[in-house]
Amino acid sequence: MWTTPTIPAPSIVARDAAAARQARLTKPAGALGRLEALSLQIAAIQDRELPRCENARVLVCAGDHGVADRGVSAFPKAVTSQMCLNFLAGGAAVNVLARQAGATVEVLDVGVDADLPAHPQLIAAKIARGTRDFTLGPAMTLGECELALNAGCERARLVAEAGHEVLVLGEMGIANTTSAAALMAAYFGLSAAICIGRGTGVDDAGLARKRTVVEEGLARHRELTDPLAILAALGGLEIAAMAGAMIGGAAHRRVVVVDGFISTAAALAALRLAPDIAPYLVFSHCSSETGHRRLLNRMGVEPLLALDLRLGEGTGGVLALHLLRAACRTLAEMATFDSAGVSES
Amino acid sequence: MWTTPTIPAPSIVARDAAAARQARLTKPAGALGRLEALSLQIAAIQDRELPRCENARVLVCAGDHGVADRGVSAFPKAVTSQMCLNFLAGGAAVNVLARQAGATVEVLDVGVDADLPAHPQLIAAKIARGTRDFTLGPAMTLGECELALNAGCERARLVAEAGHEVLVLGEMGIANTTSAAALMAAYFGLSAAICIGRGTGVDDAGLARKRTVVEEGLARHRELTDPLAILAALGGLEIAAMAGAMIGGAAHRRVVVVDGFISTAAALAALRLAPDIAPYLVFSHCSSETGHRRLLNRMGVEPLLALDLRLGEGTGGVLALHLLRAACRTLAEMATFDSAGVSES
Repeated sequence: MWTTPTIPAPSIVARDAAAARQARLTKPAGALGRLEALSLQIAAIQDRELPRCENARVLVCAGDHGVADRGVSAFPKAVTSQMCLNFLAGGAAVNVLARQAGATVEVLDVGVDADLPAHPQLIAAKIARGTRDFTLGPAMTLGECELALNAGCERARLVAEAGHEVLVLGEMGIANTTSAAALMAAYFGLSAAICIGRGTGVDDAGLARKRTVVEEGLARHRELTDPLAILAALGGLEIAAMAGAMIGGAAHRRVVVVDGFISTAAALAALRLAPDIAPYLVFSHCSSETGHRRLLNRMGVEPLLALDLRLGEGTGGVLALHLLRAACRTLAEMATFDSAGVSES
Repeated sequence: MWTTPTIPAPSIVARDAAAARQARLTKPAGALGRLEALSLQIAAIQDRELPRCENARVLVCAGDHGVADRGVSAFPKAVTSQMCLNFLAGGAAVNVLARQAGATVEVLDVGVDADLPAHPQLIAAKIARGTRDFTLGPAMTLGECELALNAGCERARLVAEAGHEVLVLGEMGIANTTSAAALMAAYFGLSAAICIGRGTGVDDAGLARKRTVVEEGLARHRELTDPLAILAALGGLEIAAMAGAMIGGAAHRRVVVVDGFISTAAALAALRLAPDIAPYLVFSHCSSETGHRRLLNRMGVEPLLALDLRLGEGTGGVLALHLLRAACRTLAEMATFDSAGVSES
């Protein structure tokens, strides 16, 4: 049973205090651009004039997808579990970037179709060994979807209570750009064709299969309007867990960093379930996955980075940590016009 | 007397080795997007398969401008020296961001119209107390311009020899967006109107004055075609020093990071003097200064970041250090398909 937790309102008082401080720092008003806006957002989230984002956790949610058997990915399904082992061994891109950023990585297995060995960075919370093919019926039962939401939400609570100021949501799941495209199409009433892309690098034939699969899924579940039912029908266990973690992070006043296309689709689902989480989300980057720019535009958000990444895992989110910290540090550490004896305009 | 130093060719061998390694890392081919291209560029610059960008120096070149007296800036001329003191005290945005990035900052005074006290991070190399009003004659004599180029080039050599892998070029000089716009217009044969912008935040009347001043400068020096003569006529001492430092950095196989509008104008001048430095330049960001996007487009380069910064100092360049390091670290530290036992596509 999923119950959306209460989402606190961001602090207008802290935001105003941060804005007043920004105005006194030794720079032309607004000259730090998006870093200034980010500093105010984080001040409001954390309810303090001088926020901080030093302590960050990357939660890589993992699950397999029934539609992988339809040939929609350039990689075999086994790569989901193989990459989970790679995350746990510290060899994936997200590990390298997290080490650089001084952030920790953990893997939340809610649906990998393999038995993963116990590991200190693995949270074993498997709900099923992957979803079912959504062209034949719902990918998950409502109960499975709720369990995944709860698993993510609960993990976010523990991460928050452990003192992390920032939660970055990444994912691993072969075929999950197909699921993300289907969610995007269903929530916004779009055609499959404008939501799909090449994911990890599918060829033209694979892209055509992907379009057919998404079209079939949309046709089968077209009567659904409830956000949770849509998520269960077309989503993934890891996508539901990410949505739950985003909601849980917001409930605990944490900065929630959204990564690429799949992470953004999870944010879309989370926003449909809990619209009040919007002020807690930081959209980190626009990937080169075809549908991502359109999805971000539809959601009315502009991410911080655009580096043609298309890797997922949380890689773009981890790269953006540096900017969150830059926003906090400039606010806290820059001299003021008065203290530095600099003339104002 | 300025003599362009020999610029070594980037290493194709190292670039190819890095590319071969990228192809074996546990990610879809190309999935790290611009970070992959960056890793190859840096490998070629440093002539090693596994390059590194940990050790970075920010060189803030400072100088005053005769045209400041024409009311083209939102801030009084005294702010140039006041901000230099702020840099030396560690209170400016570039200091905060450099501390975050583990980079060091030094100020190269080639033309501040004030006596700056001795300081370990100040390189006192004053050539003149600011430039002259370029609407009345050349901003610098050819000799002054050559001295400024040499000062930057020499400083870059020392920074390189001290073991820094990366040189970030920042600047301080009230009215220097006016000079940068004039250089952009002169080098590309553009009108003043499409090169100017609000700089630190000039109002409509100030913007109109800025346009007039640039138009007058272009008219006065319209017969010039030699790149050095144009730089002397319309540039600034700090802009010439930046151009010299960019050339010097390239001569010593260092990664040279270009910051905002003024830094990009300096890069334009440097490229006219020494076209072979192009492979050594990393364009860090597109600022919100009106002419910057157009200047970057004219130069055929696409910077890494676009965060609506308009502060200069090297702030955008320092923010991009994180991406340079991410490019190097993912290349060096990620597992390969073989080592991690991950199936290929």
